Amino acid sequence: MPTLYVARGACSFAAHLLVHELQLPIAVQVVPLRTPDSPIHAVNPLGRVPAVQFEDGSLLTENSAILPWLADQRPDSTLFAAPGTLERAQIQSWLGYLNSELHVGAFRPLNRPERYSADNSHHAAIRAQALQQLHATLRPIDEALRGRDYLVGARFTLADAYLGVFLHWLGRLPSEAFADLAQLARVREAWLARPSVQAALAAEAAH
Amino acid sequence: MPTLYVARGACSFAAHLLVHELQLPIAVQVVPLRTPDSPIHAVNPLGRVPAVQFEDGSLLTENSAILPWLADQRPDSTLFAAPGTLERAQIQSWLGYLNSELHVGAFRPLNRPERYSADNSHHAAIRAQALQQLHATLRPIDEALRGRDYLVGARFTLADAYLGVFLHWLGRLPSEAFADLAQLARVREAWLARPSVQAALAAEAAH
Repeated sequence: MPTLYVARGACSFAAHLLVHELQLPIAVQVVPLRTPDSPIHAVNPLGRVPAVQFEDGSLLTENSAILPWLADQRPDSTLFAAPGTLERAQIQSWLGYLNSELHVGAFRPLNRPERYSADNSHHAAIRAQALQQLHATLRPIDEALRGRDYLVGARFTLADAYLGVFLHWLGRLPSEAFADLAQLARVREAWLARPSVQAALAAEAAH
Repeated sequence: MPTLYVARGACSFAAHLLVHELQLPIAVQVVPLRTPDSPIHAVNPLGRVPAVQFEDGSLLTENSAILPWLADQRPDSTLFAAPGTLERAQIQSWLGYLNSELHVGAFRPLNRPERYSADNSHHAAIRAQALQQLHATLRPIDEALRGRDYLVGARFTLADAYLGVFLHWLGRLPSEAFADLAQLARVREAWLARPSVQAALAAEAAH
């Protein structure tokens, strides 16, 4: 059985909830991040989650690959779409946008300004700029959800599963900064109410 | 026939070379970026490339979705792998890493420090940190290529097509900063020698 490595509250939560959503025979192990003695270092030399380790020692990393791979283990699932279709590509496109623009482009400088300047006196300005960038990156998502419950088609897909993780993170930030993005608040509540999300949250909280 | 929009020297070059590599019936239009009157604004509200526009008006964006979609138009191509396989997921994983960590995480603060702090006096420190981040992000790629010509399997795939674009960008930077990454220099030369790369470079230079 493959093992999915996740960390509490990290972006690996998308893969974690999909294991529940798709009822996959995959073990989930919750590990600490950024501690030298975390078991993740023996699995992934980069020390990052999510990571899927296979019984033959193979490793799969990156949400934009793990989430599609998980869905492809259940070809009848409606979370993804048939290879070669535009719908599948549009779901993959949202995974790319959320991964690169929202997570790395906006949340990272907000949460880890030290990765953008070695001078501590710059960090407040970097965080202020990142908060603006975060809003600008969320706006097209809010627009895409106007009058809709899901990003692609008329059903919950991998794109919505992944988006919910970042909407959940917004809960840590001043809510007035995102008050104009009304669709996001609505979609976040629906995501939180899913049994798969609740099951994965409970499993991570137990660690 | 769909139209692929690219800009000269941009990351859209990966999609452009694949149109040649796969001999796809897709029109390629070279547009300027970041000019208010660029035709890209009528196609993609975010003003970004690459973007594929279909005859029914549908739009596909993000390299990590466009490159797989292009390859899936030729199911017999060896540039990608069968759905559900670990090999396909590993190719998609490299697309994700290159897109998020290398492009947005390292090249963006290096090339556009103004997106990370509104204070001009911070930009030199942001660029210096980004150069370090760029090296740290390239190192695992260099290690993955030790004794190998390709990132996944024993053949040129989407992952190598996309990697070459960023290795080409390194040519604009001080070469001594990357002199220890010997595999990357070797792989870059092989990428540049491909007829598809030469054809796409010539097409962009003509604009």
